[in-house]
Amino acid sequence: MVDTNDKIMLAHGGGGQLSSDLIKKYVLPNLGNDTLNQLGDSAVLELDSGSICFTTDGYVVKPLFFNGGDIGKLAVCGTMNDLAVAGARPVALSLSLIIETGLELAILEKILKSIGETAKQNNIDIVTGDTKTVEAGSADKIFITTAGVGERVGGVELGLNKIASGDKIIVSGTLGDHGMTIISKRKGISFESELKSDCASLWPLIEQLLVGGGVRFMRDATRGGVAATLNEIASSTGMDIEICEDKLPINPAVQVAADMLGFDVLNIANEGKFIAVVSHGCAERCLEICKNHPLGQEAAIIGEVGEVSKSALVELVTKIGGRRVVQLPYGRELPRIC
Amino acid sequence: MVDTNDKIMLAHGGGGQLSSDLIKKYVLPNLGNDTLNQLGDSAVLELDSGSICFTTDGYVVKPLFFNGGDIGKLAVCGTMNDLAVAGARPVALSLSLIIETGLELAILEKILKSIGETAKQNNIDIVTGDTKTVEAGSADKIFITTAGVGERVGGVELGLNKIASGDKIIVSGTLGDHGMTIISKRKGISFESELKSDCASLWPLIEQLLVGGGVRFMRDATRGGVAATLNEIASSTGMDIEICEDKLPINPAVQVAADMLGFDVLNIANEGKFIAVVSHGCAERCLEICKNHPLGQEAAIIGEVGEVSKSALVELVTKIGGRRVVQLPYGRELPRIC
Repeated sequence: MVDTNDKIMLAHGGGGQLSSDLIKKYVLPNLGNDTLNQLGDSAVLELDSGSICFTTDGYVVKPLFFNGGDIGKLAVCGTMNDLAVAGARPVALSLSLIIETGLELAILEKILKSIGETAKQNNIDIVTGDTKTVEAGSADKIFITTAGVGERVGGVELGLNKIASGDKIIVSGTLGDHGMTIISKRKGISFESELKSDCASLWPLIEQLLVGGGVRFMRDATRGGVAATLNEIASSTGMDIEICEDKLPINPAVQVAADMLGFDVLNIANEGKFIAVVSHGCAERCLEICKNHPLGQEAAIIGEVGEVSKSALVELVTKIGGRRVVQLPYGRELPRIC
Repeated sequence: MVDTNDKIMLAHGGGGQLSSDLIKKYVLPNLGNDTLNQLGDSAVLELDSGSICFTTDGYVVKPLFFNGGDIGKLAVCGTMNDLAVAGARPVALSLSLIIETGLELAILEKILKSIGETAKQNNIDIVTGDTKTVEAGSADKIFITTAGVGERVGGVELGLNKIASGDKIIVSGTLGDHGMTIISKRKGISFESELKSDCASLWPLIEQLLVGGGVRFMRDATRGGVAATLNEIASSTGMDIEICEDKLPINPAVQVAADMLGFDVLNIANEGKFIAVVSHGCAERCLEICKNHPLGQEAAIIGEVGEVSKSALVELVTKIGGRRVVQLPYGRELPRIC
């Protein structure tokens, strides 16, 4: 017989007494706030304006815990970042849990605690949520989906359609840290201890950048890495993009791991880095804002947007002066990275 | 080798070329609209006011397709209903998919089509989303999480704290249809064809009720059924609740199925029914509004809120005049009902 005291059972998701116990014993002590505590069907939010951003992401990362973070921290920061790069101050998150029967409640508690701490550190509330359970074998421990609502920063208009030839491309720090940390941990590579996910909420830095002005477009370079984001920019704008290999900030341990395992760092997911396309004239000032902030100390201008062209290619100028096309990754390389 | 043309592969969730193909070939043709088509990190919404409701629900229903609906329809209607019962006009939904490798793309397409059609019928857009894939055996075909944003209806204040002794309790129609449909289908019971889920968006009816006035509190009676909602009202308000068995609207086929399988219809999930607590003086008018609407033709006043009491019990007056306590279900009975 399953010990009801230490493992998730199907009944924890049944909407009855055990669901209620789970919320009261595990969810509210870790995530509670005035809005969530009401346990309504919806959270009521009073925002300063009706100009909002709305986003969602599912999190299926494996393993659940890794150096620099865990699925809970990821679920808070990742969704906050999707709001921030759209030019919105993150205001509130929802939290939906799908849990496999048999998950130790201690693990659930550890994740909820991480969610609560990350939310608190980043000044955001989890205001509404849901918990479902599925039979053992029908999920892999726990999947989390967060959605977020943010208030758009007045006067800021970001978009792919704002990008112009000559704009500079900034990355806010070293590339590939999150993805290589997860992959190395999964493959049991010995240097894993040197690797650490960059999982972080970027809002404090992004807020400063938006106030400073000159930003045309931003995106956090998660799945698919910098390569996916730059290819999206190229294909959407119809403009070529050129980046320089010797400008790319990469931790040596990440580079070694990527080389050993045959990955291109440009394809690897980040969870605390953005790409910003900024106007030519504002690039140095934007870079300085980044470098003066703890979240952007290793920021760099890695390239620029070229002219409109039929091919709309992303090209990398290599360290020895060669050129190679940076393609959209196929996607097979890195399942369950976030 | 897996045929890339008809099944979900891990790479469909990798953020690269195949993810992009999936979105362009399957998601946008079924769900596309001006906002979603931008494929931004966040959707930008311009609402009339900053007074909003925000909610989320995960959907893990098994089987994926059933008489009266499917997981996609459920994911749209369920989250819209959570906004509606909070007194908010549903405005926009997010959609997060977690898909098991090997799922036939034809099934995914059928679900996306259902989501698109349901959204269109109910005048709501899916404005942002995410797709993740996990290995075969790490999920059960597909799990969906939707979140929703709604604009609060001006002048309407609903809440458990508005409920007063003497208030009447209305249910908007027959009870248990959704849950018994799912259970019977899972158990392969022969009368399943007579059962049909009530899965529906309740906003059109709720909007009329809110305009009419007199509503104190609403909830859609999903997991845990009417019993869970009424117990929540009793425990939150500290008031007794009395309902009458002979007033409960129940389809005969649902009652037969419940009796055969040993379920109490009061514990069974509904997906297109609300409970409304309305002021004594407005009860008959509210009931009439319901009965005149296609979504509420079988609505009934099933009981009333009693005095504050130490026990704060929900009691059922049976058809033969006895009384029994209606308890919060334990939760074990009905996994993966929604």
